[in-house]
Amino acid sequence: MTDFTLCSTIEAPYDQAVARVRELLSEAGFGVLTEIDMQATLRTKLGVEIAPQVILGACRPQLAHRAIEVDPRVATLLPCNVVVAAEGDSRTRVEIMDPATMSQLSDHPDVAEVASDARERLAGVIDALNAA
Amino acid sequence: MTDFTLCSTIEAPYDQAVARVRELLSEAGFGVLTEIDMQATLRTKLGVEIAPQVILGACRPQLAHRAIEVDPRVATLLPCNVVVAAEGDSRTRVEIMDPATMSQLSDHPDVAEVASDARERLAGVIDALNAA
Repeated sequence: MTDFTLCSTIEAPYDQAVARVRELLSEAGFGVLTEIDMQATLRTKLGVEIAPQVILGACRPQLAHRAIEVDPRVATLLPCNVVVAAEGDSRTRVEIMDPATMSQLSDHPDVAEVASDARERLAGVIDALNAA
Repeated sequence: MTDFTLCSTIEAPYDQAVARVRELLSEAGFGVLTEIDMQATLRTKLGVEIAPQVILGACRPQLAHRAIEVDPRVATLLPCNVVVAAEGDSRTRVEIMDPATMSQLSDHPDVAEVASDARERLAGVIDALNAA
């Protein structure tokens, strides 16, 4: 099974984890462009109940711009999704699409460079979560 | 270079293409959960000018639910991005993340099944665009 995410499970309730992730993304130079409340979406559309889960679409515009200039297909992989999902009342899983996946898919050297920059920043977010 | 998108370039102005894509996604059973105006985003954040381009986050909740139940990591690849990008005044490129990418990354058989269902529907959108 390919490893295509960067992941951390932390001892924190969901709401607190979401707030912390937003803070760390901002410090890492990423804005949050989209936000999907998966729990609400699946409840409304299908009437099913899942644990609280949000998909945050994180974007660093400088990197996004460089990537789509050299390989327009990369836009289909943007923004970089950061999933925050409750695992019980006091544990939360944070799972980020590993930007290395982009360089696996597009073999343009500039995409690899951009992906590597993004990966370093997002791995820092995971490290900060693990360190807390 | 791996092929990770389904793509069609059509003879239609951008606004008309965006409307047509929304219509076809809806007919294929996909809702649009997110929308990023890349032209506006890059103008605001970086002061650069690119051609009109939007990233639509398309989701079929039944498929999303099944996929994240069996492999929670797949949430980082959702929703399925549909990029509509102007190429001059009367041509527009439509590029969809190929759901087959999901089954390449997660080797869970149920993810493969879901991805294959999504791929068939989205390939139908591309076929309809090509046929017009």
